[in-house]
Amino acid sequence: MASHTDYMTFHTEGRREFVRITEDVQRVVDESGVSEGMVLVSAMHITAAVWVNDDEPGLQEDTLEWLDKVAPPSWKEPANDVARALLPDPGDYRHHRGGEDNGDAHLKNLLVHHQVILPITDGRLDLGPWQAVFYCEFDGRRDKRLVIKVMGD
Amino acid sequence: MASHTDYMTFHTEGRREFVRITEDVQRVVDESGVSEGMVLVSAMHITAAVWVNDDEPGLQEDTLEWLDKVAPPSWKEPANDVARALLPDPGDYRHHRGGEDNGDAHLKNLLVHHQVILPITDGRLDLGPWQAVFYCEFDGRRDKRLVIKVMGD
Amino acid sequence: MASHTDYMTFHTEGRREFVRITEDVQRVVDESGVSEGMVLVSAMHITAAVWVNDDEPGLQEDTLEWLDKVAPPSWKEPANDVARALLPDPGDYRHHRGGEDNGDAHLKNLLVHHQVILPITDGRLDLGPWQAVFYCEFDGRRDKRLVIKVMGD
Repeated sequence: MASHTDYMTFHTEGRREFVRITEDVQRVVDESGVSEGMVLVSAMHITAAVWVNDDEPGLQEDTLEWLDKVAPPSWKEPANDVARALLPDPGDYRHHRGGEDNGDAHLKNLLVHHQVILPITDGRLDLGPWQAVFYCEFDGRRDKRLVIKVMGD
Repeated sequence: MASHTDYMTFHTEGRREFVRITEDVQRVVDESGVSEGMVLVSAMHITAAVWVNDDEPGLQEDTLEWLDKVAPPSWKEPANDVARALLPDPGDYRHHRGGEDNGDAHLKNLLVHHQVILPITDGRLDLGPWQAVFYCEFDGRRDKRLVIKVMGD
Repeated sequence: MASHTDYMTFHTEGRREFVRITEDVQRVVDESGVSEGMVLVSAMHITAAVWVNDDEPGLQEDTLEWLDKVAPPSWKEPANDVARALLPDPGDYRHHRGGEDNGDAHLKNLLVHHQVILPITDGRLDLGPWQAVFYCEFDGRRDKRLVIKVMGD
């Protein structure tokens, strides 16, 4: 069995951002020489995620708005009453007591999940026609790492 | 290392539906001849998911109702005020500008996650007593594919 | 290819509890002798999950409070109006008709996801500096199992 590991580093301009990485993952698979197997794509941080979905800007804007309602930041005015009610009582995350301000990014990591595993068939990522791979940053503007691990033959 | 790949196609009658596939996945494992390894079960669409949970119709009805509240469709009257508030402002998904009406199905795919990986021990899916595998359709009534990839010895 | 399987049993005092298992998973990797590969960590129950995140008690308390709002129990007074509205109509889970009272734990399992897969590089879990592995119990006070499966060379 062959195994091959690579890492990517992201430093996004925005605090929340989706970065398409489908081609980067395919390139790592190419380098591995694996034609049948799987590749794990996993954020190494607890405030980022990996999502396989449509490369459609409107959908990504929808998703970021929705994530801000379901897992609201407390360092800005809640989007509405529902977002306010989903904040912890009495309004700020306990996680922020130590000086952090990214409590919501941990919950967004939980919702989106920090990893995916992609099948490799005939040397190609075996994805559906609209499946693209995204690194999802929820607390950026600093270096964040991702591990890509290929296993197979 | 042995590797074996199979695909399933679903065409559900309903727009949202859970389809039990535990036995289908076991059959693919049987065909692979793998006795120790893992099997990846992954939707190839961005509006479907895979869930390992209880095969209990009441729970599935609960889950579909809950998903419609947390990730509300905008092509039907929101279930209640919370569902309405979780829709994007001012009420419809940006993703629908191009003529789509399945914005919520992308968010449901995100919540449920599009894949699972199951351990294989002694040639059997190594599941707990109540764990069943479901294909979760959120935008059906058309052909949708799933990939099943077995790796092991 | 080498493969190694182990199981853990949990019996938490509380109904909801996070248990750190990073070192237990590393120990199973050590026993496997695998230096390059992956390890699957997967709850064998449908009311538990596995999460990779910060080992910070405030964050865990935040997360449990938030999960109780997004996936509210119906056997206790809802945390607020949002939690009440996210309960099924007219207020109790269909899943409870048969005498169960853990409907919310199934939804929490869905939100957190029941499994992770960790890369192994040079015999070590290839995790970021703040990534710790947790077993997340949502319906404890009884024996619950987890499977740990290592694959690699």
